[in-house]
Amino acid sequence: MPNNRSGKLLDKLDQSNLDGFLVSSPHNRKYFSGFSGSSGLLLISRQALILSTDFRYWEQAQNEAPGYTLYRASKGLKEWFAEFIGQANVARLGFESTDITVECLNTMRKSLKKAGVATRLVSTRNLCDKLRMAKDETEIAMIKKAASISDLAAEHARSIVRAGMSEIELAWEVEKIMRQNGSEPVGFSVICASGPNSALPHAKPTQRLINSGEPIVLDFGACSGGYTSDLTRTICCGEPDSQFKKLYNIVLSAQQAAIEGIYTGIKASAADKLARQVIEDAGYGDYFGHSLGHGIGLEVHEAPFLGPTSDDKLEEGMVFTIEPGIYLPGWGGIRIEDDALLQNNKVTLLSMATK
Amino acid sequence: MPNNRSGKLLDKLDQSNLDGFLVSSPHNRKYFSGFSGSSGLLLISRQALILSTDFRYWEQAQNEAPGYTLYRASKGLKEWFAEFIGQANVARLGFESTDITVECLNTMRKSLKKAGVATRLVSTRNLCDKLRMAKDETEIAMIKKAASISDLAAEHARSIVRAGMSEIELAWEVEKIMRQNGSEPVGFSVICASGPNSALPHAKPTQRLINSGEPIVLDFGACSGGYTSDLTRTICCGEPDSQFKKLYNIVLSAQQAAIEGIYTGIKASAADKLARQVIEDAGYGDYFGHSLGHGIGLEVHEAPFLGPTSDDKLEEGMVFTIEPGIYLPGWGGIRIEDDALLQNNKVTLLSMATK
Repeated sequence: MPNNRSGKLLDKLDQSNLDGFLVSSPHNRKYFSGFSGSSGLLLISRQALILSTDFRYWEQAQNEAPGYTLYRASKGLKEWFAEFIGQANVARLGFESTDITVECLNTMRKSLKKAGVATRLVSTRNLCDKLRMAKDETEIAMIKKAASISDLAAEHARSIVRAGMSEIELAWEVEKIMRQNGSEPVGFSVICASGPNSALPHAKPTQRLINSGEPIVLDFGACSGGYTSDLTRTICCGEPDSQFKKLYNIVLSAQQAAIEGIYTGIKASAADKLARQVIEDAGYGDYFGHSLGHGIGLEVHEAPFLGPTSDDKLEEGMVFTIEPGIYLPGWGGIRIEDDALLQNNKVTLLSMATK
Repeated sequence: MPNNRSGKLLDKLDQSNLDGFLVSSPHNRKYFSGFSGSSGLLLISRQALILSTDFRYWEQAQNEAPGYTLYRASKGLKEWFAEFIGQANVARLGFESTDITVECLNTMRKSLKKAGVATRLVSTRNLCDKLRMAKDETEIAMIKKAASISDLAAEHARSIVRAGMSEIELAWEVEKIMRQNGSEPVGFSVICASGPNSALPHAKPTQRLINSGEPIVLDFGACSGGYTSDLTRTICCGEPDSQFKKLYNIVLSAQQAAIEGIYTGIKASAADKLARQVIEDAGYGDYFGHSLGHGIGLEVHEAPFLGPTSDDKLEEGMVFTIEPGIYLPGWGGIRIEDDALLQNNKVTLLSMATK
């Protein structure tokens, strides 16, 4: 009996003229089955829910994915794929084209051909990812938990930061406090970028020593039950210079405009524009080079994407970041990022850390 | 002027009737160019070395990949891919079929077609990965550094482990000591599995409290300059039971047989058999379900693969794990893993932690 999530996928399959779906990406695998191992494939159809995995994950799969029949994968994919698929009588099987590699597709097709299984593999794009955009109550609770852990870490960073500390040192303090407060290991590293380094939105922490007065961009997330938070604070040791204050207020106003202006059904591109307009009007449009935000959940970057060219719409239950920034090469950058839940036609912030 | 690594790749291309190569996987990108950002493509040919990346990584790419001409990627792959490729006059361009997704290949082909660029994209398999198998002195130095950090962590774990500690707690102590001793963040989590949990080779740490006398499998690695180590120790609080002692000695003998028996030019499958034979002879062949080991380097699992069905050969300069194990469902498991360098026709262990 398919659970609610699989049920939604099956409805999508009907619309796409597919009678089965092969889930391969780790996050989608966990979303539909609960299984969190690093290797496995789900076969979802009206007739069957089957999870293939190998001996390393057998017991874990039994515990985590009780709704699925297990299929034991051994040796290479080519050896077992046809038998695995052959268990369900599927004519047109969708697969995740943004996850399956060229090599993997070739191997799967060869396996089917050799075994005379007539199932046709059909390329699909972001079909599962779109289903994950609107979060249910359990998911929201986990993101809230993760967000509260990153809030703690932001307050901790603010309380201990001092001139002469290296970026690597401060980044490690942030990570340590998250882990000691219950965060699971996170798949992305803490960004801690000071002074000119903060002009690079994706800077890696270095041995650079932090100076008074300059911007320090801290961007990090915690993880709870597999769900992530994503938080950025730009802080300062001692008295910020006038440039810092000016830019900070512009970025904060831009963020506020998006928080207040987003409603259920708004285009993600229009949401982006709410904040971007404020930065453009202040004369810094050329220095806000990235998108306003992105969905968070099992991945730290997932749909919906809030950018100028996005086709997504923001709907009830979606959880996404709102993170405008201004980056001046040579001087540094200011970014402020909160996690936001769209519910009852308005944005509620899940991040509470001091701005 | 191509550097030595690119030079080797270019020689391979000649053999494969290719006149250019598109490097897409992060580890290969770093290996050939030095660039460690999360997004970018390398175009390597006799005429040009070009790295495409976006504004986020522009400065980092300039610093890390001085031998490469930079190409600024903006908007989607479809928009810029043809222009990027068009810079080099390449007729047959190899790509990494185990990395490029079905969707990505479609997009690249559409981009070329639309722009009228005649370059043909040719699927290749593990071409770069094989070049990375034999390590140079710089790489060996970095793996040694990473191995010494994991040694420290193993000794630390041995000194602090006590009955009543949870697996998660002990795993975190191991991770913390590695990071505080200079390890970069590692892409894989510490395995800490106690009692029956240790029968699962890939168990995730749980809240289970460790008991005296039972096996505790600790499997983890450190990272230095992007290079990883990989170490497993099976330890025990208090006095191990007789089962523990018996199995431990078998696994240790199996590992020793491989360490002593491996020579330059041995088939990886024969290396696996050296250890497997000892475990089979002791009557536990059915309880050693995984391969003997794998290469380590920029990835924690990379070629060569030391397993019964491997086609690899072990050659001078290769660095790989030797990690036999015995897993008894319900009771637990024993695994011992060291990092080994093959040099001057013999194995030298890079791991020094007490066994």
